[in-house]
Formats: sequence, C-alpha cells, structure tokens
Amino acid sequence: MTETATPIPDTGPAELDDVMAAAAAAAPAMGGLRPARRAVMLRAVADALDAAADELVPVAMAESHLPEARCRSELGRTTFQLRFFADLVEEGTYLEAAIDVADPGWGMGPRPDVRRMLVPLGPVVVFGASNFPFAFSTAGGDTASALAAGCPVVVKAHPGHPHLARLTGRVVAEALAGVRAPAGVFAVVYGMETGQRAVLHPATRAVGFTGSIPGGRALHDLAASRPEPIPFYGELGSVNPVFVTRAAMKARGPEILSGYIGSFTLGAGQFCTKPGVLLVPEECDLGPLTHAVADLAQAPLLNERVAEGFEHRLGELADHPAVEVLVRGVRTPAGWTPTLLRTGVESLLRHPGVLLEECFGPASLVVGYGEEDRLAEVAGLLQGQLTSALHAEEGDAVAPRLLELLSGRAGRVLWNEWPTGVSVTHAMTHGGPYPATTSVLHTSVGATAIRRFLRPVSYQSVPDPLLPEALRDGNPLGIPRRVNGRPEAG
Amino acid sequence: MTETATPIPDTGPAELDDVMAAAAAAAPAMGGLRPARRAVMLRAVADALDAAADELVPVAMAESHLPEARCRSELGRTTFQLRFFADLVEEGTYLEAAIDVADPGWGMGPRPDVRRMLVPLGPVVVFGASNFPFAFSTAGGDTASALAAGCPVVVKAHPGHPHLARLTGRVVAEALAGVRAPAGVFAVVYGMETGQRAVLHPATRAVGFTGSIPGGRALHDLAASRPEPIPFYGELGSVNPVFVTRAAMKARGPEILSGYIGSFTLGAGQFCTKPGVLLVPEECDLGPLTHAVADLAQAPLLNERVAEGFEHRLGELADHPAVEVLVRGVRTPAGWTPTLLRTGVESLLRHPGVLLEECFGPASLVVGYGEEDRLAEVAGLLQGQLTSALHAEEGDAVAPRLLELLSGRAGRVLWNEWPTGVSVTHAMTHGGPYPATTSVLHTSVGATAIRRFLRPVSYQSVPDPLLPEALRDGNPLGIPRRVNGRPEAG
Repeated sequence: MTETATPIPDTGPAELDDVMAAAAAAAPAMGGLRPARRAVMLRAVADALDAAADELVPVAMAESHLPEARCRSELGRTTFQLRFFADLVEEGTYLEAAIDVADPGWGMGPRPDVRRMLVPLGPVVVFGASNFPFAFSTAGGDTASALAAGCPVVVKAHPGHPHLARLTGRVVAEALAGVRAPAGVFAVVYGMETGQRAVLHPATRAVGFTGSIPGGRALHDLAASRPEPIPFYGELGSVNPVFVTRAAMKARGPEILSGYIGSFTLGAGQFCTKPGVLLVPEECDLGPLTHAVADLAQAPLLNERVAEGFEHRLGELADHPAVEVLVRGVRTPAGWTPTLLRTGVESLLRHPGVLLEECFGPASLVVGYGEEDRLAEVAGLLQGQLTSALHAEEGDAVAPRLLELLSGRAGRVLWNEWPTGVSVTHAMTHGGPYPATTSVLHTSVGATAIRRFLRPVSYQSVPDPLLPEALRDGNPLGIPRRVNGRPEAG
Repeated sequence: MTETATPIPDTGPAELDDVMAAAAAAAPAMGGLRPARRAVMLRAVADALDAAADELVPVAMAESHLPEARCRSELGRTTFQLRFFADLVEEGTYLEAAIDVADPGWGMGPRPDVRRMLVPLGPVVVFGASNFPFAFSTAGGDTASALAAGCPVVVKAHPGHPHLARLTGRVVAEALAGVRAPAGVFAVVYGMETGQRAVLHPATRAVGFTGSIPGGRALHDLAASRPEPIPFYGELGSVNPVFVTRAAMKARGPEILSGYIGSFTLGAGQFCTKPGVLLVPEECDLGPLTHAVADLAQAPLLNERVAEGFEHRLGELADHPAVEVLVRGVRTPAGWTPTLLRTGVESLLRHPGVLLEECFGPASLVVGYGEEDRLAEVAGLLQGQLTSALHAEEGDAVAPRLLELLSGRAGRVLWNEWPTGVSVTHAMTHGGPYPATTSVLHTSVGATAIRRFLRPVSYQSVPDPLLPEALRDGNPLGIPRRVNGRPEAG
C-alpha cells in the first residue's frame, strides 16, 4: 500500500472551529506586518517548496496521474508566483495609498484630510483545484495572493490529491514558522462538508475557489446566504471558443489546425482554458485534422470523478443529433484518446445550451460556418468565458467587430494564439462574466488577483504618528501614492 | 392639488423590458465612446441640473421636507460630483491600463504580449435613496460613476420623491440627448415590484442601492439568486459609534458634546453617517448635554414611512430596561424633537444586538464607561460600519489599539471629527463590512466608486491598430499606464 492510498480523514467540526479561530486570531498580526515582512514569508515558502520538489512531485504524479515534466514545471510556476507576489508587495502600489490633504477651497465645500489605503479582509478559505495540484491548490495563486494581501489562509484540500495537499501544507507551514510568521496563519483541512462549513464559518472573510460550475455555484450560494455575506471568488467553467476567419485559414490553415490539436489535447484537455469549440470555414478540409487526432496516444485523466464527468458530458455531445463524431476517443487501461466532433454553425446557434457548454477532458467540437457574419452571431450569444481567441488577418473586415464582441464576454481575448498556458504577469486577467467566474470584477491570476482580499479604509484627520506607515507624510515605506489625485513615485 | 400630489404609476413589466432592452442596446455604443466624450456628457448633465435648480429645489422640498438651503447645497454637491467624475474620466488612470510586452526571458517561461484595461459592465440599475433626493438618487453618485464608467443607467425612483425623480430624469435625459449620447443610455422607472424585476432582468449587469438593511438584503439575495449572479452594491445601515477618551473629554468636553449634538441632529438624524452611539467616561456630567438637546426645535422627517420606522426602532431602544431616556423627543405637527438616551457599557456589551443597531432619525445613545479598556471591547464586537470616530489626545495609550480595531470594522475612521458630511474626494471611502454595505471591497463615494461598474479584460498579442486606444503603443489617449509593472505618466 503506497502512502497515497491511505485515506486522510475529514476534518471534524470542532477541529475546523479551532483552525478558524487560530486564523482569526492571526489576522491582526498578519495584517499589521510590514509588506516587506510578508515578502520574506512568501519567498521562504517558495524556497521550501523548490527544495522539497523531489518529495512533492512523486506524490503529485501518483495522485493526479500527470507526468513528471508537467508536475515539475507546474511547481516552478507555483514558486515563481509566490516570488512574483513578494516583489509586488514590496513595491507597494497594490496598497493604493492615496492622500487628499485638507483643502478649504474644495469645490463642494472645505474638505478634511482624507487618506485611503487597502487593508486585508481577514481569513480566506481556499478550495484547491483538481487539475492544478500545485499552481491552483495548496500553495497556488489564491493562497499566494491572500497571504501577500495579509490574510490568513485555510486551504480545503481537493479530494483528488489529499496527500499532496497535506505534504505541501507541511512544507508551507514549516517555512512560515521558520520566518516567524504569526501562528495560525496557514492550515489545510479535509472533507466536502468541512468545506461547506468553512464557507459558512463566521470567521471566514472571503473564499477562493477553482472548480466546476455546479460545485462553485453551490458554494457561491452558501456564501451569499450567510448572515454576513462574504465575497466568493469562484473560477468555474469556460468553453474558450476560437474563431478562425476564412482569410486566416487560407493563409495558415495547417499551422492553425496543428496549434488547435496541441491546445485542446494539452494535459488531456483538463484545463479551464481548453479550446472547446473551433469555428472554421465550412469548406475547410478536416481530413488531415481528423487523421492527426486519430493518431494521438491516450493519456490518463486526473481521477475517476473527472473521468465520469467527462464520459457523461461527452455522451451528451456525441449523441446529439446535430453532432458528427470525427474521431471517437477510446478508454484504455492507460487512459483516453482524444475525441473530435463536428457540427454546423446553424446547429450551434440553435442549441447553444448543449453545444456551447464546457466539456472538461480530451474532446473538442469543430463548427463549420458559411458566411463570416455568422461568427458575430455566435460571439453575440456566448455566455461568460475565461478566454476567447480570434485567428484572423489584420485586414479581415470581421475582426474589429468580433474583437469588440469577444471583449464583452471574455476576460482574455487572444489574437492568433491559443488560450492554454496562462502567464503570471501584471496585466493578466484570468476571469470573466458568469459562469467563467462568480465575480466578474476580478482575476485569479496576475498581479491584480491580490485585490480580491483587500478592502479600502479611509483615515480622516488622523495625526501622522497614528496613521499606518503607508499613509504618513514622510512615506516611510517608499511606495507610490496618489496625492490630491496625482501619482507620486515612491 | 400640487403637482407632487399626483401619483406616478408604476412602470409595467413590458415597459421595463423596453427600457432594459434600450439600455442593453446602448451599452456597446456608450462603452465604445472615448472617455473625453463621456466627460462632455457628465458636464452637460451637471450644467443642466444647475440651470434647473429653481425648478428642482421646490419639488425636492415638497417631497422630502428638507429645507431649501439643504436642497440647494445637496444639488451643488451632486453637480460637483458629476464634474469630478468627468475630470477623472479624462485623466484616465481609472482605466488601469497595463501593458506587459512579450518577454522570452520571463521567469515562468516566455510570456506573450498581454495588455489589460477596465471596460464597462453594461446596464446598471440604481436605486435612489430617501434621504438624499439629489446626491444619492436620480443623478447621484451611483448614476454619475456608472455613466462615467460607460454603463447605461436605469434609475428606480425612490417612492419618497417620485416627482423629483421624474423631473431630474427629464433634465438628465435632455442634457444627454443635447450632446448626442447614445439613445437608451438613461431612464427612470417606478414601483417596488419594478425594482425587483429590474434586479432580476437578464440585461442588468450590476445594481447600486442606498437604503435600509432589510430592503437592501432582500435585493442582494435576489441578485445572488439570478441564473447569472451580478454584483450588488448596497449601502445599508451603520451606527457610526464615536469613542471619546477620558483625556479628550477632560481637555475638550464642551466642544465635543456640542459637536455631537450638531452631528446627530443634522438633517433630523437622517444620515447613514449619523453618530448613533457616543461612548464617554461614566463620570461625565450629561446635564448640559441634556439641556442643550431638550432645547432643540423639531424638524420634519422625510416621509411617513421613515417616521414609522423611526418610532418603532426608538421604542425598542427607549423601552429597553437598560436604557434611560434623558430627553424624550416629541412629535408635533411640525416634526420631531430629538431624543437622547443613556446606558452603561456593561449593558451595551450584554445587548449589542439591540443597542448597537441603527436608529434612523433624530436620536442617539450615550454610553458611560469606567475603565478605558472597555472601549476596545466595544470596538471588538462592532458589526461593519460606514464610519467610526475616535476623540482622543495624541498621547492616549488606548488610541493606537482603538484605531486598529476600528479600521478593521469601518470604511472610514475619523480622529476628533464627526462622521456626517462625506466629502467627494479621491481618497474617500463610503463603505465598509456588512451590514454597512453588501460589498466590502467598494465605496459608493469618491473616485474609486467607478470601479464598481468596470471589469478587467486582457488582450493577448492583438495587433496595435486593433487594440483599444488605451492600450496602443503610442498611447493616443495620453493616460497613465503601467508598462512591465512600472508606472508611466500619460
């Protein structure tokens, strides 16, 4: 019996109470630390995770069935992300410090001295994702941005990789203790009911979630039903439709189709950014695409639950009267081979509820269109998306209209690129209108992910020595601030 | 029969559908306007309202029973606010434009060109407030910030001043038409059920609300229950407790008590920032305060519904066994005289559910305390507040701890000042944890109120001519942007 086969018991209600009470007790100390101290904590966690790679990666591989190279690169992305937030916290713009000095001549009447900054919300509950055991789980983006903001974090381990959660949790907790982080600032809990109780717990001040639409919606509704509703940041599902114009297909057809195959089969199609629908001119010869997909090897899915969900949803699509199966994927002991489906744009427009819904796993739907105007019709009826891509030529008449429509429905709009592989940068958005997320104003990846865990406080006429350092006259933290509405460098 | 006595019929479901469809149709055009064009619109509305003051103010006075000077100054605040957002939109920082150029050496692997900005959410439904017929109603802060963001606005008129809503709406609509704003970008609707239907309407993308806790909570729950949940920005209720240290009372007692009277009776106590609780040393002689309050004249309340709510809640407080009535306000044909109540800190700590709850109207509760440590206990059990004030001396040992606790519970923390009179500035926060608001991350007053109606979109590798102007290489809008994480001036 391998270590990962031993079940980890659910966290009981009393133990959860203790964890949440410790998190609540840690919140003022954590929030009161100078940003530079939190940067030290984030870097210590990153270093400890890097140092534990040889211990972590085999557990990740055993529990998620992801290959070693993917696990190692995902761990690298995770520690990069922690260091990225450490830099961000030191730089200080994220505090949004703003000072309006008293002004007796202010247009609506004399104004007092008002100084604003963002402060941490308090304990954050993070739900790990099945498909990113490192980067969207125990020490992933939600945890990194919440700790960076100054919030204690309680991770609800994903049932797909509980042992990795426990091991990662130990590495994180030890690293935090090693740099004297406040006790109680980080913990991992287990069990579905535990997660629900954590969302409803009075000490919880926000929730970060990455997962399915039904699971996320149920937790969103719980969070909204609390006596005190709290922000629920759920990153749920997305079809990530890709629109290919006639001119683009003519100019770069083989390259586009090969990019498509690479993107929709990457990680066995288990990315929230997988292109689930590809719109191509109806005259496009799908023979080479079909052959290339049919030749692909099988890959295991993350776990039995994901596999069951995939088979069910794939059945809905493949059995739909308007859908033709170009390549029927098969299940072997070593995993699934990819499935390729086809339909026409008229059918897509007639049945968007079935055909324009996420299918999580190695399958994608090619949609042939006649007139290019139909692309705008499809774009116009899309639900919220994490991404949408346009493959086009710069002179395409349809391009400006499509870009405008897609930016109205997706958090990220790509040009001649593929949506999988989300970079962690300042300008990244990984979000979008519902059901892509439950919080259309925010992103779960990139610098501004930290905003989700901060709230504004204004201090009116508070004497300088009693102000938070970020707002004092002398700018002791050396951070960028807005003074009387104008930016000033740190 | 005066004009304001004629009832305005509720907007029917079909008419609401038309209004919402027009708003949805206007959204792309409105969102696509250059910021400078929207600034023109906002200034045109402000100018038109100023020009119509002599027509608007009498209607406001008749419907709200507020005195002329107050109505005129509130209208001035309203048009100032519209021009403030016009300036903000032209300046452009609010777009949060950020550019990360492609970088093959990026730490987590080569990154593409990613450019982020904020775009408007779409149609916003605004619920006017009873107590600010101008500044938080038809052309108030929610409307100004939503239009500034580029969102069409549908105002649900407050039943307390429907004729003012209709008249203001006409002035706004004509001003917008006069500068060729997109048709459908602004409308006023009437009726409680109409408001509920508007919150649930598929075209609505966000809601701004100022009002009571029960009313706001019910609409919040509706917004969260939608097939696609939308942001609901409710500014609900607040007690705005004021803490006075022993040293401050000793140094400035009479000045503090006279400031308190002025603040809690301002506008007949009908401000969401009214100080509802004043904590003073128990040995403080309340005789002069009592006499001063007893001498005050009556003032009318906004309307019968507000009066009924006030009388009910006042009864709860005045009849509470732990509460002593120092001055019992009376109702006369010309309005109410103020009520002053007293209790001890032990009672407050024992019955926070009753004693630390908003009482909207001309009444306030003075709480005597013994040890100054009790102030921190009270601060520790506060619910979310819009404001909390500390009157203290700089050397007070209790001050730093109190400021920290209050900043954890209130959106604005004041030092030796009174919470009524919210200035519209860059650094202002008018918000706070529930039940002060339903959206702890946001403010409904000040520059950042515009954020509520914007969402981020990232453009990946989109060719320069096809990018929104705000993100093009040449920075044609001349706005401040972050490039590779570093701020660049416009």
